[in-house]
Amino acid sequence: MNETLQNELVALANRLADAARHETMRYFRCGGLETANKLTEGFDPVTVADRSAERVIRDLIEVERPDDGILGEELGNKVSTSGLTWVLDPIDGTRGYISGTPTWGTLIALHDGTGVVMGLIDQPYIGERFIGGLGQSSFSGPHGAGVLQTSNVIELAQAKVFTTFPEVGTDDEARAFQSVAKQCQLTRYGMDCYAYALLAIGQVDLVIEAGLAAYDIQGPLGVVEAAGGIVTDWQGGPADQGGQVIAAATPELHRAALEVLVAYV
Amino acid sequence: MNETLQNELVALANRLADAARHETMRYFRCGGLETANKLTEGFDPVTVADRSAERVIRDLIEVERPDDGILGEELGNKVSTSGLTWVLDPIDGTRGYISGTPTWGTLIALHDGTGVVMGLIDQPYIGERFIGGLGQSSFSGPHGAGVLQTSNVIELAQAKVFTTFPEVGTDDEARAFQSVAKQCQLTRYGMDCYAYALLAIGQVDLVIEAGLAAYDIQGPLGVVEAAGGIVTDWQGGPADQGGQVIAAATPELHRAALEVLVAYV
Repeated sequence: MNETLQNELVALANRLADAARHETMRYFRCGGLETANKLTEGFDPVTVADRSAERVIRDLIEVERPDDGILGEELGNKVSTSGLTWVLDPIDGTRGYISGTPTWGTLIALHDGTGVVMGLIDQPYIGERFIGGLGQSSFSGPHGAGVLQTSNVIELAQAKVFTTFPEVGTDDEARAFQSVAKQCQLTRYGMDCYAYALLAIGQVDLVIEAGLAAYDIQGPLGVVEAAGGIVTDWQGGPADQGGQVIAAATPELHRAALEVLVAYV
Repeated sequence: MNETLQNELVALANRLADAARHETMRYFRCGGLETANKLTEGFDPVTVADRSAERVIRDLIEVERPDDGILGEELGNKVSTSGLTWVLDPIDGTRGYISGTPTWGTLIALHDGTGVVMGLIDQPYIGERFIGGLGQSSFSGPHGAGVLQTSNVIELAQAKVFTTFPEVGTDDEARAFQSVAKQCQLTRYGMDCYAYALLAIGQVDLVIEAGLAAYDIQGPLGVVEAAGGIVTDWQGGPADQGGQVIAAATPELHRAALEVLVAYV
């Protein structure tokens, strides 16, 4: 891909995130949101904001890049004729969003049919954005901008590990996570996609999750890989289709965690 | 207490929080923090930032209000001769702080010997502040300012409940928390003092914790009570000395949760 196209795609990704910000912030911390349960079991609210943000992103892509595919959490799949597909989760962390936390995010990725070529994580309330791929590896926020760079932690005993829910996924998946976590320096919960952003700026060292969809991980994957991190499934294979995901700051730390997880996959 | 003194104390509390912000932000998300384990077991890092922030707060109080007492997490107790004591936790959520999360906070409270008369929660990275008591009930942040007001949720089934760690405290305390949480709409972890701020702006409905110190709860207590919420221990008594704490949006929700917790105290 030539540099002009790369820059155009990055500029578009930023415009998509800007447009989504406007929609997600309209409804954030407002009372009386219309929510619905997507699952008959459990609690997975879809907010007006989620659909509205995906709508504006899709409309912009249709105008600017009509041949690109679109895979969105809320509004389904449009097949690509250009080879490129935009993969969207307008509000990753809807439970966090409806609780007013500042750690949900808008995820935007670009996939070329073989892998993720660009990922973006945006946190609209704080005003932070992390972007990796297509020549980018940077973040910007309320206290300035900088480059992405994972930590140099190579041992579990020095690692800070994050996952969103203590349940992780199935009982086996929870046991797998706990087997890694008990060897780590520190375990934290509740950050959704923001945990991957913290990994990409070297603040945490390991993120382990399960039960992810493609649109949950492709944005974070692009960001973490551009920062020098490793993102795979729990068997060491590609993670771009979701499922069980591990993201690590260094190859050594990735290997150490994978050796524990492999007993459970 | 007359209004002039109230306003002076509120102005000082804001100055203390401003001064602490400068110190905590100097070290936030910087690598190579000098940390130390306060406990021989477990992980409870004290950062340079924590001590440095408490130092500047104490110095300001010594100059402005030399007869007031000071109880700080890091630098101990100074007995009050005025009847008022400042209760300080410069960085509540040190684990979150060293992981780069935006949900730790600086806690400042004023206690008159019978109870908390003012509480303040400050989140320096986002630039958010919540203050309650001495005629105040307000917040300010990156998207404007407003008044504090808890939600009107009265039933557990409609409640969003937060605690910092899934372990909560002892095994019995964890079981107690889970007994409430399983009746709630949604359970989340990892927010430290920020959970009380979310309660005070009506975004979450219930915060339940255990093993708190006086300086962990007095800032949040002042904020939540000024917002119309209820903060007690798990037996319904005063919570200002810490221990097992429940903070609820409404008296009805408080009663419903207490009925579950009481079996475990």
